Amino acid sequence: MKKNKISTQSLSGFMELLPAEQIVFNVIKEKIARSFEKFGFAPIDTPIIEKAEVLLAKAGGETEKQIYSFTKGDNDLALRFDLTVPLARYVAEYFNDLVFPFRRYAIGKVYRGERPQKGRFREFYQCDIDIIGDGELSIINDAEIPSIIYATFKNLDFGDFIIKINNRKILNGFFTELGLLEKAIEIMNLIDKLEKIGLEELEKGLADLDIEKDKINKIKEFINISGDNKEKIKKLKNLEIKNEIFEQGVKELEETIKNSLLFGVPEKNIEIDLSIARGLDYYTGTVYETFLVGHEKIGSVCSGGRYDNLAENYTDRKLPGVGISIGLNRLFYQLKENGLLKFGPAVQTKILVVSLVEELDKSLELATKLREKNIPTEVYLEKAKIKKIFSYADKLKIPFVVVIGEDELRGNYYTLKNMTTGEQQQVSFDEILKVFAN
Amino acid sequence: MKKNKISTQSLSGFMELLPAEQIVFNVIKEKIARSFEKFGFAPIDTPIIEKAEVLLAKAGGETEKQIYSFTKGDNDLALRFDLTVPLARYVAEYFNDLVFPFRRYAIGKVYRGERPQKGRFREFYQCDIDIIGDGELSIINDAEIPSIIYATFKNLDFGDFIIKINNRKILNGFFTELGLLEKAIEIMNLIDKLEKIGLEELEKGLADLDIEKDKINKIKEFINISGDNKEKIKKLKNLEIKNEIFEQGVKELEETIKNSLLFGVPEKNIEIDLSIARGLDYYTGTVYETFLVGHEKIGSVCSGGRYDNLAENYTDRKLPGVGISIGLNRLFYQLKENGLLKFGPAVQTKILVVSLVEELDKSLELATKLREKNIPTEVYLEKAKIKKIFSYADKLKIPFVVVIGEDELRGNYYTLKNMTTGEQQQVSFDEILKVFAN
Repeated sequence: MKKNKISTQSLSGFMELLPAEQIVFNVIKEKIARSFEKFGFAPIDTPIIEKAEVLLAKAGGETEKQIYSFTKGDNDLALRFDLTVPLARYVAEYFNDLVFPFRRYAIGKVYRGERPQKGRFREFYQCDIDIIGDGELSIINDAEIPSIIYATFKNLDFGDFIIKINNRKILNGFFTELGLLEKAIEIMNLIDKLEKIGLEELEKGLADLDIEKDKINKIKEFINISGDNKEKIKKLKNLEIKNEIFEQGVKELEETIKNSLLFGVPEKNIEIDLSIARGLDYYTGTVYETFLVGHEKIGSVCSGGRYDNLAENYTDRKLPGVGISIGLNRLFYQLKENGLLKFGPAVQTKILVVSLVEELDKSLELATKLREKNIPTEVYLEKAKIKKIFSYADKLKIPFVVVIGEDELRGNYYTLKNMTTGEQQQVSFDEILKVFAN
Repeated sequence: MKKNKISTQSLSGFMELLPAEQIVFNVIKEKIARSFEKFGFAPIDTPIIEKAEVLLAKAGGETEKQIYSFTKGDNDLALRFDLTVPLARYVAEYFNDLVFPFRRYAIGKVYRGERPQKGRFREFYQCDIDIIGDGELSIINDAEIPSIIYATFKNLDFGDFIIKINNRKILNGFFTELGLLEKAIEIMNLIDKLEKIGLEELEKGLADLDIEKDKINKIKEFINISGDNKEKIKKLKNLEIKNEIFEQGVKELEETIKNSLLFGVPEKNIEIDLSIARGLDYYTGTVYETFLVGHEKIGSVCSGGRYDNLAENYTDRKLPGVGISIGLNRLFYQLKENGLLKFGPAVQTKILVVSLVEELDKSLELATKLREKNIPTEVYLEKAKIKKIFSYADKLKIPFVVVIGEDELRGNYYTLKNMTTGEQQQVSFDEILKVFAN
C-alpha cells in the first residue's frame, strides 16, 4: 500500500528560490548591509514574534487586518509587519544602554497577510536604517539619507535611479491654507496613490471627500509644480502661502536638497516631487522615494522619511528620527521580471577536485590548501564516470575542474580544466592560485 | 491625562542583543556561512512559515507540542522548528531543478515553544549543512563532515574542541543481539541523555523498560568501551557480535574515522563515543556531536548524522543524506556565560569625522573618499561641544576621530586622534589610509 505524500508546494505569497537565484539574492542583501555599515550604522536583530499589543499599538486599518496573530500559552502574539515598530520598542527598552544619535540598521523578515498577487509577498525582507535622536535630531541628517541611498544603489548597480523627495510640512501647511487640514491625511493618501490611479481618479477621490472644485484645482496646480529643483522651490515660495508650517517645510526641503549635493548626491539623481506623501501617517517632515529610471512602474524601491516621535506608545521620551527601508523580495522579483539580474553558478565553488584514483590523499590535501587561500573548493566524492562528473560541474557552473589521475599522483602537477573555454593544462599549485589572483 | 505606555520588555525565551553583542553574534554567523561556502555548499532560504501538515508529518512527541501553529484565512500554518523538514520539502519540490549530490547550507531562525530556561531559546538560528544523494550517497561523505566541523570551529577560534562520533548501526545491531531491538529507540534516547542524567539514572531508566539485569550490564559494558579510536574499534570487533548491521556499523565507523584523518582532521580532535545516539529517530548511520574542551557542560555545539531517507513523507524518491546543525543562540549564550567572547565596539565605524566649522564640505568629501576605500566612516552631524562628541566616539569605541577646524580647512591636512592611545597628529589622506592598511 502506497502512503499518500504530502504536497510540497510552497505557500502562495512566499518566495522560494533555487540556489543560483538565492546566491544573487544574498549578494544584494550583503551589499546593502555593507553599505549601511560604511555609513556608521550598527546592526540589531529583534525577534520576529512580538506581543500582539506591541504591534497593534501602531498598526491600524489595512495593516492590522494583515497581521499574523496567534496565541501560545497565555500570550497573544503576532509576527512583525515591519522593522520600525520593533525598533521603537527596542529603543524604549534599552534607552539607557544606547548612545544617541542611535544609528541602527536591521535586515530581517517581516509578515503581511496581503491578498497574494504578482510581485507581492507575505513574507519578505526589509532592509532598514534609522537615525534616532534623543529629544532632537538635526535636519542635516535628512540630507545624509539621500547620500546613503545613492551610495547603496550605485553599488547595487541596477542602472540609473532617481531619489524623489518631498516634505510633509509643505503638504500640511498647504492644506491648512485651503482649510482642508482635517482632510489632509485622506488627501495625502490619495496623492500618494497618484502614480497608480492617475489624475482623473484623484480628482474623483477628492470630490468624494466633498472638496470644492476650485480647491481641487489648487491641489492639482500644486502637485503639478514643474521645473528643476531650484525652480520648484522658487514656485513654492511664489505661492506666497503665509503659513508657518508650509514655510518651514519649504525651508527644510530647500536646505535638504542643497545639503544632499554637498553629501555627494549628483543633482540629476535627486528630484523634488510634491506628489509624494507616503501613506503611513507617522512621517512628519522629509519623505523619500526611489525609482529605477525606465522601470518606474516597479514603484519606489527605497522609501522613508522623517518622524517626530518614534516610540510614543512605549515611552515618554521624545525620539525623533529619520530612516529608509528597502523591501527586498519585491525589488528582487521585479528586477528579475525586468531582466535586470544575471544569474550565474548554483554554488560559490570555484574548483571541483576530481580524483581518478582510489587514493584521495593528494585531492584532499589540495582542497584544504585551496580553502586556506579562501578559494571555495569541492572534492567530488561519489564514484562516477568522468563524463558525469564534468556534467555535474557544468550544471552547477563551477568554473574550474582539477583532475588528479595516476600521472598527476606521481608527477608534481595538476591538470586544470577551464570549464568555460574547455582549455586544459598542467599546472602547479601556485599556478592554480594565480588564476584566482585577480 | 497621561496615556498608558505599553511594556517594551522582550518576550521570555527570545534573545535580544545590544549592538556590541550583535556585532559579535553576526561575525560568528558570517564565519560559519563562509566556512560552509568554502566546502562547496550552496545557500537556500525557505519560508519560516510552513503548512502545518508539512511540519507535523515529521514532528512527534515533544516537538509537536512545541510547535507554534495558527490559522490564517483557510490555511493551517506553523513556524518551522528546524531546517531539515523544510529542506526535505524543498528537495522533493524542486528535485528536477537540483543537481545531486545536492550540497546546501541554510542559516535561519527556527521556533520551539519550550519552557523558557537559562540558555534555551524559543527563537534561535540554526546553521545547517546537508549533502543529499539521489538514490545513494557514498559513505566517504560521512568522513568529510568532521573536516567541515574542524575547519569551522578552528576558524571560530573558541578554543580546543573535540568531535565525537558513533554509528547508529552499531547500536541497532547490538540491541538486536540482546533481543532488545523493539526497545532500541527508547534505550538510545536514554543513552543519548547519559551526559545529563548520569549512569545511575540510566540504569534506572533501563530497568523501567523491563530489561533484565544481565542485559543492562552488557549495555553498560558496551557504552564504556574505552581506549583510543583504534582500541575501541578493536574492542568492538572483539565483542564478536555476529550481526550484519552491527558489523556494517563497525566497518563504517572504522572507515569514517580513518578517512576523517585523511580529510585533515587531527587525531586528537576526533573521538569514537559509543554513548552518542542522538535523540531524533531519523539518523540511521554515523552520528556526530561536538564539544568545547573544558566546557563540556555546554553540551554539543554542533551535531548531526547520516539518514537513509530525507523526504519519505513528500516523495517516493530515496534521498539519503548526511548533515550537521549548529544552534547559534544557545552557543552564543553559553560562550558569553563562560567568558569565551570578547565584546568590542558598538558599531563597525572606524573613523568619526568631526567638523568644528560650519562648512561641512571637507568633512563630507573626506568621508566619501574613506568609504570608497571601504573604511566605515561617520560624520558627526549634531551641534555639540567637542567633549560630548569625543564621549560619543568613546562610548561606541570608534577607534579614530578626525577633527576638521579652521586650520585644517585652510591647510592641506587633517587632525587624527587615536581614541585608544589618545595620541593626536596632523596627517594627509594617504596617511589616514596607511593606518588601516594592515
